[in-house]
Amino acid sequence: MKGIGVSPGISIGKVFLKKEVNIDIKKKDIDNAEIELDRLDKNIGKSIKEIESLYEHTLKEFGQKEAEIFNAHRLMLEDPEFIGRIKNNIKEEKINAEWAVKKATDEYVKILESLDNEYLKERAADVKDISIRLLKNLLGIKDVELSSLEDEYIIVSDDLTPSDTAQMRKDKVLGFITEFGGRTSHTSIMARTLELPAIVGVKDITKKVGNEDIIIMDGNEGLVILNPSEEEINKYKEKKNSYEKFKEELNNLKGEKSISKDGVKVEIAANIGTPKDIDKVLEHDGEGVGLYRSEFLYMDRDKLPTEEEQFEAYKVVAEKLDGKPLVIRTLDVGGDKDLPYLNLPEEMNPFLGYRAIRLCLDRTDIFKTQLRAILRSSAYGNVKIMFPMISNIDELRKAKDILEEVKSELRSENVKFNEDIEVGIMVEIPSTAIQSDIFAKEVDFFSIGTNDLIQYTLAVDRGNQDISYLYSQYHPAVLRLIKMTIENGHKEGIWVGMCGEAAGDEKLIPILLGMGLDEFSMSASSMLMARWIIKNISKTEMEEKVEKILTLGSPQEVEKYIDKEITSKI
Amino acid sequence: MKGIGVSPGISIGKVFLKKEVNIDIKKKDIDNAEIELDRLDKNIGKSIKEIESLYEHTLKEFGQKEAEIFNAHRLMLEDPEFIGRIKNNIKEEKINAEWAVKKATDEYVKILESLDNEYLKERAADVKDISIRLLKNLLGIKDVELSSLEDEYIIVSDDLTPSDTAQMRKDKVLGFITEFGGRTSHTSIMARTLELPAIVGVKDITKKVGNEDIIIMDGNEGLVILNPSEEEINKYKEKKNSYEKFKEELNNLKGEKSISKDGVKVEIAANIGTPKDIDKVLEHDGEGVGLYRSEFLYMDRDKLPTEEEQFEAYKVVAEKLDGKPLVIRTLDVGGDKDLPYLNLPEEMNPFLGYRAIRLCLDRTDIFKTQLRAILRSSAYGNVKIMFPMISNIDELRKAKDILEEVKSELRSENVKFNEDIEVGIMVEIPSTAIQSDIFAKEVDFFSIGTNDLIQYTLAVDRGNQDISYLYSQYHPAVLRLIKMTIENGHKEGIWVGMCGEAAGDEKLIPILLGMGLDEFSMSASSMLMARWIIKNISKTEMEEKVEKILTLGSPQEVEKYIDKEITSKI
Repeated sequence: MKGIGVSPGISIGKVFLKKEVNIDIKKKDIDNAEIELDRLDKNIGKSIKEIESLYEHTLKEFGQKEAEIFNAHRLMLEDPEFIGRIKNNIKEEKINAEWAVKKATDEYVKILESLDNEYLKERAADVKDISIRLLKNLLGIKDVELSSLEDEYIIVSDDLTPSDTAQMRKDKVLGFITEFGGRTSHTSIMARTLELPAIVGVKDITKKVGNEDIIIMDGNEGLVILNPSEEEINKYKEKKNSYEKFKEELNNLKGEKSISKDGVKVEIAANIGTPKDIDKVLEHDGEGVGLYRSEFLYMDRDKLPTEEEQFEAYKVVAEKLDGKPLVIRTLDVGGDKDLPYLNLPEEMNPFLGYRAIRLCLDRTDIFKTQLRAILRSSAYGNVKIMFPMISNIDELRKAKDILEEVKSELRSENVKFNEDIEVGIMVEIPSTAIQSDIFAKEVDFFSIGTNDLIQYTLAVDRGNQDISYLYSQYHPAVLRLIKMTIENGHKEGIWVGMCGEAAGDEKLIPILLGMGLDEFSMSASSMLMARWIIKNISKTEMEEKVEKILTLGSPQEVEKYIDKEITSKI
Repeated sequence: MKGIGVSPGISIGKVFLKKEVNIDIKKKDIDNAEIELDRLDKNIGKSIKEIESLYEHTLKEFGQKEAEIFNAHRLMLEDPEFIGRIKNNIKEEKINAEWAVKKATDEYVKILESLDNEYLKERAADVKDISIRLLKNLLGIKDVELSSLEDEYIIVSDDLTPSDTAQMRKDKVLGFITEFGGRTSHTSIMARTLELPAIVGVKDITKKVGNEDIIIMDGNEGLVILNPSEEEINKYKEKKNSYEKFKEELNNLKGEKSISKDGVKVEIAANIGTPKDIDKVLEHDGEGVGLYRSEFLYMDRDKLPTEEEQFEAYKVVAEKLDGKPLVIRTLDVGGDKDLPYLNLPEEMNPFLGYRAIRLCLDRTDIFKTQLRAILRSSAYGNVKIMFPMISNIDELRKAKDILEEVKSELRSENVKFNEDIEVGIMVEIPSTAIQSDIFAKEVDFFSIGTNDLIQYTLAVDRGNQDISYLYSQYHPAVLRLIKMTIENGHKEGIWVGMCGEAAGDEKLIPILLGMGLDEFSMSASSMLMARWIIKNISKTEMEEKVEKILTLGSPQEVEKYIDKEITSKI
């Protein structure tokens, strides 16, 4: 079976099938309410214990923030209003505990969902989660949690949610295979972070395999082999060994520079999402951070972060980088990232909507607080500011005006910051790539955001399964825009980086080098591989390949050309 | 007050405020059910009469298709199940008729909305409509319908729906002013079709004016003057006169060719949506149809149109055009245009989703039927085929392969068609404009679709009010893509047209001529104005202006430049 390999590596092992169980609740009249109340109490206790152990586990493996959700779940199971309602149902209506739970849950969910408050609406999902846990316990349905894996497994699922992965014991997971998702889905990103092989988009896999089936997965090729023969197992064991040897070779590249065969030096940097990600960047010898997503500060909470909170989160990373560049992207929410407490409008096409810089130029209170925090952190390291979703030169000018205002505020308060802080933009909207000659005159750097650039240039929502075959970083039109942006940047003497998924794509790195890209920013786990590729190719040679590629018609032709003429020859 | 002038002309007149009334229903216990049943019957009768008159009116003014909805409404009011439920409510619960109607409606709506069937879900809106009509009658709320206007009015509203405009008596309407909407909203398109002035996006206008207030509206400038002085009224009467004189001058251009001062001939064509639109095109001396939207054949019905139905709808237009070109665009649904009976997927970002050619290449049954019908109609006129939403050369190649299959089917059946029928594409996705050099080698023509091209190039949903300030046909990046497309087309010797809103924009026509556009396709009502502009400018002069414009940074700078250097000098 074939899928999309989204995180490299080979695993051979048993299947753990994570499938949602259908729970069928029947209403039963009962004689003795006491027995039901007793059953209820016992299973509430059991559920609380489970939740507590999930909390502990998540705290240890992932941290306080990720664990917090389970605290909320526990509180709900101790809530006298909610539990009281269930008990009343049992006593007054003489019904079984399961039905009483179902009834109370339905009422709660209905109320929460009817409220005109996004935050409370989302709480309905929590109530459902808790109720399912409690019902499963009442019914004696054994639900193997990802956290309780006793042995090593390859996880097979429709798709994994953040709360699924939060529960995993990393040492028991050999890899992920899912039916849905793409290169940028949660499963894919998580797999690359954990350095586990992952394959997404494997049609009907949850129907075709069963628990404990032996399978082989090859995350490099996107290949899944069900019930492999002895011969196949041996072949893949060998492949796995040589892949692991190669990984060792990569490790030996730590401390070296990223210089091509013909002496062109580039910067291999990382994209990070939270301050703790920086440890892994340094461990993999990152030469900087090309994208620090500041959204994490604003998400999973019920109010805006203070200037101080932000300052701390920026400063700690700046200090750890010890003079290496740190590009902080200003708030990029809206689109698929909602902040309930901002009451963002419901939109028909959120990816074409009120998001990122569009929101910040409107909500200058939020924007200024963030700029103050970033500027202050610039006294502690090599910090640069980057504005996302710029589509129009006026937006850039407004953003820069506000930055100047904030600078003079800080000056008048005698607060230290880097007066010469570099200011750049994401080039992720076609118009900005097309006008990059004009933009280059007014910024210090460009960073190409391929994920969005592809989706707008091709009019393809990257999350939409029905048309995912059209989404491709090998589309010649996208590559033309990238080349245009790099060239226009260089004409004005500014550096050009890339912080989209494409920057870490093994097939594209040679092409991007050929186009003259100065900085490649990617997941920390891809950096050494990128350095290895750069060291094994020559820019001048790649320049010729680029000329050829830009005359090709389709993404498929481009990919084939790269495979044949470049990848296979490194 | 200022808004966006979306249809030219000046009107001075009384306000008709179309505002939704809030209906407040209270539950009352009653003694005598007979009285309530009697009231109910009378008001059902009254409502049916209203609906019948709306039906008659719509049939006369707009045709069978548009009138059909009122037949459905009448049937609902005669439905024994629905009415029986209301009557039972009155008899059994001893409640007032209003509450009984509300209760039955809520139950019906809830059931319909819970069904997993888009078509039935939409019927819930019909049930609500009917219920509101019946309740208004029961409560004696006089709801002045747009269809019953006795005098001439300027209609002021939040926004107008197709069913609002379907009810209008065209001779009683002087113009439209709405709070919402843009150049491409329903109100705007309808106003241009009816040749009435219209202004959209006038903030809070429904709060600031009352019924019968006298106002002046200038659709050319987007200006609304409340309670004007005598002096203002006289000034605008004069303006109106001179505007009408100018319109006469335009009428005198009928029969002339569209040739610039320096002798460059272009084609001024029309966009049409239904076969009956062709009469107006001919009346305004259109030189062809640059865009025949085939969607109307598929909408407002519950199954796909047959090949025969389609053939007739294409043939009648082809014949009326009598040798003038007719560009038929293949099915462009999805996005904001749903077809309930196709069960299209619900999408997070429909504008970046499964639509148009993406759907047709997947549902080749639908596509082939349409291609057969178009090909057959090509025996009766100068028919050309155009594929929408092409983002990738493979899509074009697949579509052409299917066309060849259909041709050979027809050949083997000895059915007549034009073997040399021209095949073109919409250039409306950035990637296709960027690769237009490659596409030009494989098609007979391009037609630039600016509405979508702008929205993808700028990542701005054109229907999203919060960011509408970013949507602009004057954005230099969009203009660069247009110029690139025209140049690449001409290098391969094919003609390039435009069928988006921009082609009819008085300010852009000179720029587009300067870029070398061959065909301008627009609303029929704009064609003579476009011819007038072309006759009053010189292409060589405009070529210089284009060079300058493409170096400008922002849309505002472009618009200002055009106003100062071009529009004011014609």
